[in-house]
This record gives sequence, C-alpha cells and structure tokens, in this order.
Amino acid sequence: MKHSTKVGIIGAGPAGLTLALLLQRKGIDCTILENRSRQYVESRVRAGLLEQNTVDLIRELGASERLDKEGLEHHGVYLSFNGVRQRVPFKELTGGRCITIYGQQEVVKDLIQANLDRGIEIVFEAHAKHIEGIETDNPSIFYQHNGEEHELTCDFVAGCDGYHGIGRQHLPKETYNEFRIEYPFSWLGILANVAPSSDELIYAYHERGFALHSLRSETVSRLYIQVDNDDTVDNWSDEKIWEELSIRLGTEGWNLQSGPIFEKSITPMRSFMIDNMQHGRLFLAGDAAHIVPPTGGKGLNLAVADIRFLASALTNWYENQDDSLLQSYSQDCLRRIWRAQDFSNFMTYLFHKQAPHGSFENLLQKSKFDYIGISKAQATTIAENYVGLKEI
Amino acid sequence: MKHSTKVGIIGAGPAGLTLALLLQRKGIDCTILENRSRQYVESRVRAGLLEQNTVDLIRELGASERLDKEGLEHHGVYLSFNGVRQRVPFKELTGGRCITIYGQQEVVKDLIQANLDRGIEIVFEAHAKHIEGIETDNPSIFYQHNGEEHELTCDFVAGCDGYHGIGRQHLPKETYNEFRIEYPFSWLGILANVAPSSDELIYAYHERGFALHSLRSETVSRLYIQVDNDDTVDNWSDEKIWEELSIRLGTEGWNLQSGPIFEKSITPMRSFMIDNMQHGRLFLAGDAAHIVPPTGGKGLNLAVADIRFLASALTNWYENQDDSLLQSYSQDCLRRIWRAQDFSNFMTYLFHKQAPHGSFENLLQKSKFDYIGISKAQATTIAENYVGLKEI
Repeated sequence: MKHSTKVGIIGAGPAGLTLALLLQRKGIDCTILENRSRQYVESRVRAGLLEQNTVDLIRELGASERLDKEGLEHHGVYLSFNGVRQRVPFKELTGGRCITIYGQQEVVKDLIQANLDRGIEIVFEAHAKHIEGIETDNPSIFYQHNGEEHELTCDFVAGCDGYHGIGRQHLPKETYNEFRIEYPFSWLGILANVAPSSDELIYAYHERGFALHSLRSETVSRLYIQVDNDDTVDNWSDEKIWEELSIRLGTEGWNLQSGPIFEKSITPMRSFMIDNMQHGRLFLAGDAAHIVPPTGGKGLNLAVADIRFLASALTNWYENQDDSLLQSYSQDCLRRIWRAQDFSNFMTYLFHKQAPHGSFENLLQKSKFDYIGISKAQATTIAENYVGLKEI
Repeated sequence: MKHSTKVGIIGAGPAGLTLALLLQRKGIDCTILENRSRQYVESRVRAGLLEQNTVDLIRELGASERLDKEGLEHHGVYLSFNGVRQRVPFKELTGGRCITIYGQQEVVKDLIQANLDRGIEIVFEAHAKHIEGIETDNPSIFYQHNGEEHELTCDFVAGCDGYHGIGRQHLPKETYNEFRIEYPFSWLGILANVAPSSDELIYAYHERGFALHSLRSETVSRLYIQVDNDDTVDNWSDEKIWEELSIRLGTEGWNLQSGPIFEKSITPMRSFMIDNMQHGRLFLAGDAAHIVPPTGGKGLNLAVADIRFLASALTNWYENQDDSLLQSYSQDCLRRIWRAQDFSNFMTYLFHKQAPHGSFENLLQKSKFDYIGISKAQATTIAENYVGLKEI
C-alpha cells in the first residue's frame, strides 16, 4: 500500500514525538512509524532526568500538564567523595534553572497522547525495512504493518529510531566518521519500592567504586553501583546490593533506606557518535547518531536538542524555501553533542574508580572534587551543563 | 667550625630567600646555605611567570622595586586550537587579578639583595652534606665551605634545596608516598633576541603538537615546541624551529616575528610529589617536595605558597609556643599542591597532542577548548587558577 506525507519519522521515542509536534504546529504533515506497540514504548524504562531545556520545550508544546504535576524539580545535586559530601546548588549558579525527575516512559506517554490529540498519525508495530531515494526529492520508507507491505513517500525522512535503527544504516558510510568508546566498567541498576533516602541525587566516588542514588518518584528509588564489565546480576543478592550502596553513598549522619527491589540489570558504559547526521533527504536525531554514558543524564536531552535544530531547519525549508539550516543541521547539533560527550566523560571520570585508590590519578580526581567546593566557577560549570547549556 | 641560628635554610632559591625575609621581619634569625655561587643562582634561567599571590608577597616584603618597574603585567592569555584563537581575560574574571612576566633569576637577584640589605646571612658555595638530629630539638646541618667542614645548629631545618637537594633525602622513607608521572613528550625551549609577536602568552594546540609563545622582556622572546622525549636539539635548526612555531601558533592575520636564537634546550615534562613534607624539625618546601609540568606556570608560585604556610607556622611557634600550624604544615600545603597538579595536568592535556588528531579523545580536547568560549564559568576556572587561587 502506498501512503504519503511531508516528513516521514521513524521512531516514536522522545525525538520523533517531539519533532512531529513541532512540525504539526507549523502545519507540516508527518507520519510516525514505530516498530513496537504503544504499550511497549509507554512502559520501556529509560532515562529519568530532564534538563531545563527539555522541560521548557515540552511546556512550549503544551504537553506538560502531567509533567508539571508529577515531575520532581531538583534544585541541586549532592556529590560525594569517599564519604565527604557537598552540594552543587543549581538555582543560585544558573539563574534559576533546574532539572526535573520524570521517567522517560512518562514523557513518551504524554507526547504520544499529545500527538494523537492533534491528529498526527502514529503507526505502531510498523517495521521499517529500508529507505530509498534519499538523494532524490521524494524518498520512501518501506515498512511492514499487520503482515502487509507499505511504502511511505515523503519529502524528508527523520531517523529517530535509536542506536539499532535503520536510519543510520542508510547513511552512506563514506559520509561520516564513527567513534566508539567502551568504558572498563558497567552499572548495576536497581528499581526499588522505597522512598528515596535523599531529596536530591547523590553521585558518589568511593574507593570501592561509583554509586548513584536517584529516584523515579516519591515511592520508587533508582540506584546504581559500578561493577566490572563481566559481572552478572546473579552475583548480587538484594542484601549485598543494599550493603554496598550503603557503604559507597554513606556519609556521617545519613542512612540509606532499603526496600524491595523489583528490577535489577547491568548496563555497559559507552560513548558512541558519528560526526555527520545527514545525507540528502535523510536526517538522524538522538540515539541513532550518538550515545553518551548515563553519568551526565544527557541522553534523552540531547535527542530533544537535536530535534529543536531539525524542526527549525525543516520549517525554514517549508516556509521560506531556505535550506541553509538543513545544510548546517549536523554541525549545529554536533557542538552540543561534543559538549555533552565531554561533560558525560568528565562526570564519569570524576566519580568512577578507574585507578587504584590513593594513586596519583585518583588523587587528581579528589583534587577536582575538592575544587568544586573551593570555586564557584567550577561548581557553575557542573550546574550549567547539568541543567543544560542555553548558549549552544 | 660550629655556627648556630634559629632556622637553617638550605637553598637560596625563591623559597629559601622568601622564607628568610618573612622570618627576619618577625625577628627570627636564620642562615641560608646555598650550594652554588651568587653569580650562578642570579643567572640561572628558570620560570618567568608570577601569579598575583607571588607578586603580592614580594611587594609585602618590600622587595618589588625593580619588579614593579620591569615586570610586565598580563591581563589575559590567548588560547589557540589548530589556528582558532580566543582570549581569556583575567581582570574581568578574577576581580582585577593578573600575572606578571618577570624572570625567576630577576626575582632571585632582588630577593638576595633584600636579604643582604637586612643583614641575613647567605653562605654561597656552602655544600650541605647531611642533616642530623631532626627528631631532636637541635638539628644540625653539616656543610663544606671554602674547603672547611662546618656545622650549623638550629631549631628548625628548611629544605628549600630543590628536587636534587639533600632535604628530601633526610625525610624518612616510611613517612611519605611518592608520585611520579613522566609525560610522553618534552618541550624544546628557545630564547631569542626578538620582540614578542604577541602582547600576551599564546598556548596552542596544533595537530602537529603543542606550542607556547612566551617572553622574558620587551626584547627577548621565549618559545616552546612539543617534541618527542627522544628528540635532540641537533634535529632542530633555527629555521626549522621558527617555521614550526609559525605553523603551530598561527592564526589568520597574525605573523610570528623570528630573530636570533641564543638558547635551545629540551626539557622532559613530569609531575612529581610526596604527600608529606615534614618530619620532626625538618620541613621541605618548593621543588624539594613537588614538580609540576610547566604548562600551568605554577612551579615557582607553589614554592612561594609553601613558604607562606611555613613562615606562619614557624612564627606561631616562636611567638606563641604553638606548634599547631607546624603540625598541619604538609596538609595545608598539599591542598594547593594538588590543585596545582590538577590544573597543570588539565592545561597539559588541553594543549598537547596525545591522541591522533581527529580521534575521539582529541575531539573531546577540542570540545573543552570550545567550552571556554561558550562559558564564562569555564573561562573563570582557567583565569583563577592561572593568576593563583586566593581561597587555598
């Protein structure tokens, strides 16, 4: 079956859903093809930290009703080094900006609803197989849906289909360089039915390794422990996890509350990116083009930042027949992506155990940590990256 | 021959000379033993960058007459990345603080004169051989002078005698950990009779390697090029040096002036430190306890910072019979030393070629460089470390 639209979007994650809403506002038709079911994408647990820029965009799109009610604004973050804890206050250091804790699946739910409310077509369980004609004015996305073959003809294809998607596979190899960094450690992450023991996130270096105290809501805690890449969840009983978290996150006069763990998984840490995100009529955004280690909380936010550029560029093309923003799309995105890669790398280096405790490299780590307490400027660099830079 | 004083100082470098002046003001006798001749130490070319704290101290000591006249105040620094140049303005970012370009040998001349003017004894060509009794109340320094054996008995021994001095050799091995980092590159440094081509220093990353444009005076330029550790000056003709500097430092609309080179040498880059600088009545300061790579211009300034702590601690002991500052001397110094190690390491990493040009690591370097231009906070971290932190 043949269909047509102006912008064919592959992937109903935060990137694709945001793009559709931004285009719809400008009267630009689009269709979203999503590989999975609605139920699946609405319950897929991913990131949970929205920077100020992302919250601002969701508000601008009129899709923030539930976010405004249920999202938890955090105005600072705790940083800990072997039991010594300090706080970086975002509000004071960034002129009132903050982060909001709100699960990615909740964002996706809200954005799907907003798309459907505005009559944007989302085809769930549409299995995009290949893209043709990206060097022509009328590329097509071929997909299977309900056992039938479909072709979606459009002016532009937006590959918002993640790291494993077909978007990047259709970018000619000779148009980009690829970067892959595998870190020598992984995160054991848990979800537990227990009220968070801290009102704000705690990033901790400990001589036993990194730990992170995060949360999903006022009744669900999300915590992480640095483990070796070859470790498995079978090595980690609930008791052992809580004990380890308690030691690594510990500081005088503070206790970690434990509770029933209902999810346990191990995720490797990696950085990935390509230095060109477009070719002809194909444009990539989000995880399709870059992965950052989760230490800086930047993954989802970077995807949304890409979309701001892409939506402006497409709008400029449709409204003014001007392709200059389309031409500069990759370069515009890449400045922010490199900044996020560097910040994520910095946070990863600062809080993970990489060199023996007490070694020169480890004591430089400690010096960087101490410097945050000494210097308002250094604390500001962390705060402004964390809530999301306005300038790029 | 037997002599006695209150504080026996080994080494007439910036550390020893500053310590003597600070103690003399408080009426505490001291004697400086210097291995070399006066002429030698007054012409030994070393660092040439004084941070604000160091200039403030020399002024406080009333030894700044010539420094105030001949020192060149720099209110900013240029940073370059493969031809793209930006400036970090110190004054705006640090509330009016700056650096002063004034050769270490000039500092030493001024401080020697000030010491002699105030009747402080400096014994030149006094070859300190060993120290005895540092665990007693009356340690002695044994030295040879004019072919004769001497013993200087004192209350305290200050080892300001540099990396190769006997001070550190007398610190019991079990009292400290030692850290040594050898960087995988060296600096080819030149002195040339040519007016500087830039009003302020230029630190440059280039895909061919690091370069630094510095100066000694309005007629003498000091420049450096990153070379391999096994390189030799024989490989570098004057012409080749100027050509390489011109490429690495280059930016649009700017030309490097060349001139007769009158000194050429290669220096390896390293970090060295010990985490305890005292035992009993022996206290180390400056290069005796730590070496930083010269990229941050911190060596001389750290030595002077140690001395501020040591002079206060000794004064507190003599005036109030209070040894608390003596007890905490190493820890007080170490916070600043680690900060300087980290800053020097940061500057070294930022501007040297370590990974292939265009690699992920190199592009993170570029991202850090770009961030300085985007963020006032990041520019401030460089400015405040460069002029010298006030807070520690």
